Amino acid sequence: MAENLRKRSFWTWGFTADEPSLADRQEAAKRIARRTGVEVTPPPVPDLADIDIRAPRLKVPSALQGWVGTDSEERLLHTYGGHSLELLAALRGRFENPPDAVAHPASEEELERTLAWADEQGHVVVPYGGGTTVVWGVNAPEGADTVVTVDLDRLNRVLELDPVSRAARVQAGILGPDLEDALRPEGLTLRHFPQSFPWSTVGGWVATRSGGHYATNHTHIDDFVESVRMLTPRGWWESRRLPGSGAGPSPDRMVIGSEGVLGIISECWLRLQKRPTFRATAGIAFASWAEGAEAVRQIVQAKLWPANLRLLDPVEARQSAGVEDSSALLIVGFESADATQDANIRAAVAIARSAGGRIDDEAIRIDDGKGRATGRGGAVGAWRNAFIGVNAGLTNGLGLLSDTFETAITWDRFAEFDGAVRDAMGDALSRTLGSGTSLSCRFTHVYPDGPAPYYSFSGPAALGGEFEQWSALKAAASEAVIAAGGTITHHHAVGRMHRPGYDRQRPDLFAEAYLAAKRTVDPKGLMNPGVLFDP
Amino acid sequence: MAENLRKRSFWTWGFTADEPSLADRQEAAKRIARRTGVEVTPPPVPDLADIDIRAPRLKVPSALQGWVGTDSEERLLHTYGGHSLELLAALRGRFENPPDAVAHPASEEELERTLAWADEQGHVVVPYGGGTTVVWGVNAPEGADTVVTVDLDRLNRVLELDPVSRAARVQAGILGPDLEDALRPEGLTLRHFPQSFPWSTVGGWVATRSGGHYATNHTHIDDFVESVRMLTPRGWWESRRLPGSGAGPSPDRMVIGSEGVLGIISECWLRLQKRPTFRATAGIAFASWAEGAEAVRQIVQAKLWPANLRLLDPVEARQSAGVEDSSALLIVGFESADATQDANIRAAVAIARSAGGRIDDEAIRIDDGKGRATGRGGAVGAWRNAFIGVNAGLTNGLGLLSDTFETAITWDRFAEFDGAVRDAMGDALSRTLGSGTSLSCRFTHVYPDGPAPYYSFSGPAALGGEFEQWSALKAAASEAVIAAGGTITHHHAVGRMHRPGYDRQRPDLFAEAYLAAKRTVDPKGLMNPGVLFDP
Repeated sequence: MAENLRKRSFWTWGFTADEPSLADRQEAAKRIARRTGVEVTPPPVPDLADIDIRAPRLKVPSALQGWVGTDSEERLLHTYGGHSLELLAALRGRFENPPDAVAHPASEEELERTLAWADEQGHVVVPYGGGTTVVWGVNAPEGADTVVTVDLDRLNRVLELDPVSRAARVQAGILGPDLEDALRPEGLTLRHFPQSFPWSTVGGWVATRSGGHYATNHTHIDDFVESVRMLTPRGWWESRRLPGSGAGPSPDRMVIGSEGVLGIISECWLRLQKRPTFRATAGIAFASWAEGAEAVRQIVQAKLWPANLRLLDPVEARQSAGVEDSSALLIVGFESADATQDANIRAAVAIARSAGGRIDDEAIRIDDGKGRATGRGGAVGAWRNAFIGVNAGLTNGLGLLSDTFETAITWDRFAEFDGAVRDAMGDALSRTLGSGTSLSCRFTHVYPDGPAPYYSFSGPAALGGEFEQWSALKAAASEAVIAAGGTITHHHAVGRMHRPGYDRQRPDLFAEAYLAAKRTVDPKGLMNPGVLFDP
Repeated sequence: MAENLRKRSFWTWGFTADEPSLADRQEAAKRIARRTGVEVTPPPVPDLADIDIRAPRLKVPSALQGWVGTDSEERLLHTYGGHSLELLAALRGRFENPPDAVAHPASEEELERTLAWADEQGHVVVPYGGGTTVVWGVNAPEGADTVVTVDLDRLNRVLELDPVSRAARVQAGILGPDLEDALRPEGLTLRHFPQSFPWSTVGGWVATRSGGHYATNHTHIDDFVESVRMLTPRGWWESRRLPGSGAGPSPDRMVIGSEGVLGIISECWLRLQKRPTFRATAGIAFASWAEGAEAVRQIVQAKLWPANLRLLDPVEARQSAGVEDSSALLIVGFESADATQDANIRAAVAIARSAGGRIDDEAIRIDDGKGRATGRGGAVGAWRNAFIGVNAGLTNGLGLLSDTFETAITWDRFAEFDGAVRDAMGDALSRTLGSGTSLSCRFTHVYPDGPAPYYSFSGPAALGGEFEQWSALKAAASEAVIAAGGTITHHHAVGRMHRPGYDRQRPDLFAEAYLAAKRTVDPKGLMNPGVLFDP
């Protein structure tokens, strides 16, 4: 079995190289204790070799053993996704439901033979990209007899680059940074930077409709997919490479967001950008969250299409950008490979000011395309890198419960929606965690017809009772979001976690129709059961 | 039965008010004779009352007779869509396969009762918007025993307007101009203007993925649909109103482009625009089509997102905009409700000039938002209204065969593609029609990764042999487009006409999967059979 190029950590979000030191964790424990009043010693990190897990319930044929294995460490490393409660269970050495085998196909032929074997034997198949899912997208389904996880990490190359159309044919298992490294020499970039970017894959992004760098206009990976190639138990499904089409319903849109229930995406043609050189950025303060939201609405409806248009409520403005005066902070940013963004940033700032925003002229930062900038940028710099590559390991097991949930809602309902969600979560937090809790929100993406609010919450957890506490909070969040008209997820995907809310949200007949579609390509129902639908 | 508000013409594309006079037709006949060398007298327009058609093969229950009828004129008027060969057949009084009944439900209850009756009795159902389809989308399927056409013309209101989110809840049967009339008092507009705009409906646009006003960025109606409500034989399918979502595959994208095979779209929430006041336009000449195409590529990849970015080849530049020197003509236009487009048009012109484009500074026309303009606009004005509301009746039956086909292709393959299509069509035209033929192309929509070329052809037809000649030409066009890697349609839809090409283009497993999805909501296969799939 080939060694992973980078070894995944089993107790933090990322690679072993990202794991915090014991000293860092002790420091974090002290910080948390000051907030919660409870001293916690960072729990020891177990040695994977010491953890006993269920024996594999299947035998791998010798012909497949070059890339399919059943060794414990591999199976432990593929038991969980990246949700903080999963990382906590892992840190505590709990791996009740590992997959029985893990495949690392290095070619389409190996992928075909893996799927043919699983289909013939009736093994459940869980497609696995970077394993960063926070919605239980890659777990072995409860109740499945035998489970094979197919890790795409060896299908990780850029196969073709078309600088004329600005597109690339990319294997699904490539990680974000490797993709960008391959595109950089051509002056191209995908510029899709979900928070999971360092450790997640193109295939995972497409399968889960991830949201990335662009805050407006083309926000989801959906818009960057030119065509898809996917292996189903019935064979290959591949769309024609086209810049646009109106020939029937889009085949790609049935695959994008399929979360592994149809098949395994093996490659895509992706639409690329020229690397931006002209930039313009401004951080604009607002007296209130509501005032900032109104400014965002006006800016996005003016269709200037900023790459960044992120509003932080006063709590997040303080935490992430050091804003101390209870202002909400709006970060507006434009970028282009071709033209100065001077006019755009000034138009956006003018709208923001007329809606009550405060910014000094000299705090508007404009790059001239040669790396020289005018203006000082204000609070933007502190914020810039606060979100990518969040280290979930640092606070793992230290008595702090924290999570996020994200949604989208039309502008006409936003104020009421936000109020209802904050009320419900405020109640749930004090009921479940007592005092010392925190709740905040930012807009990660914005559309002309509404924002995508992203809520974060945290509070002191009862050691050993975290899962039950989290479950109560998650249920409250989901109920609030769905009851108030939002979507159960804007870009974190459905997985197994969001099923109750998703089942209330999607049209019932759509669910029946899509399930029938799935059954034509996966007649035995082996592909990632429990995600999107009941197994 | 309620009278139609505007009476549809049976022999021209549009209403009876749009029908050309006999004098106009005689004038057109002379013009055509000068080109073809054959004098043709405009054929007389038959009186619908004189045309004998097949008796209805079903009985309408008395409870439904308030809105479902079998009278001949209604059935004649719903026999054909708007393709020129269909209009020719109609002008010649040939109506071999009319539907057996036509329904005009005025409420969702009437729609439900219509569909319930058809489903119970096994009548095929053909959803009908404005009847402007040029791809045989609304014809009674050959071989069907009984057919009911459901005309949405009485479900034609704007039900709700949300100026905060800029969205409206609209019934599917509303015509383009009526929608715009309803939005105008609020300062809003959909700005979706397909060529069929005066006579086509919102439901038709959504069902066929129509392409509209915007040449770049959000081109298809797909992007303007916030949610859909559709009645299937199994009941209602309605999505949640959301500005964006990543919760599983998009339910709406299964409906958009469904061309009536799943059910009847009864209403949608549509995303709207504020009416633009700032405008900037330029007509830029290029020595060649290839040089113009390269400029278009560079402009669209600069992501300035002009509303208009249409390139006419030298033939079209002469015909539509009076350009006499064999130049290709690029029309670039920006518009905004909020900000001057001065910087954008100058950036686009700069790119065009560096790619060889010729335009005088004073020919750049910039509106200041108050209706005052600088610059003179050059060739743009002549072109502006050359495409909406094409009058297909004027030349009907006069010995001129003309048609269009449209596609999309990535930039890296465009030159070769365009050469192959022109070669194949040139051969087919001279083989089929002899001399005096014409072939031309323009870009109607453009994406960063490729253009949507729209080809027009014409030539002298043999009276009475038009259909066979057209069939040979259409087959050649479809073969060329599909063989060279394009899509069989960019915005005209698949219908029954494009099935052979479509069947080669879409992934086979997608077709199986989508058909299975259809069967869950239409178990008897009554919804518009023959469109997208075999009946």
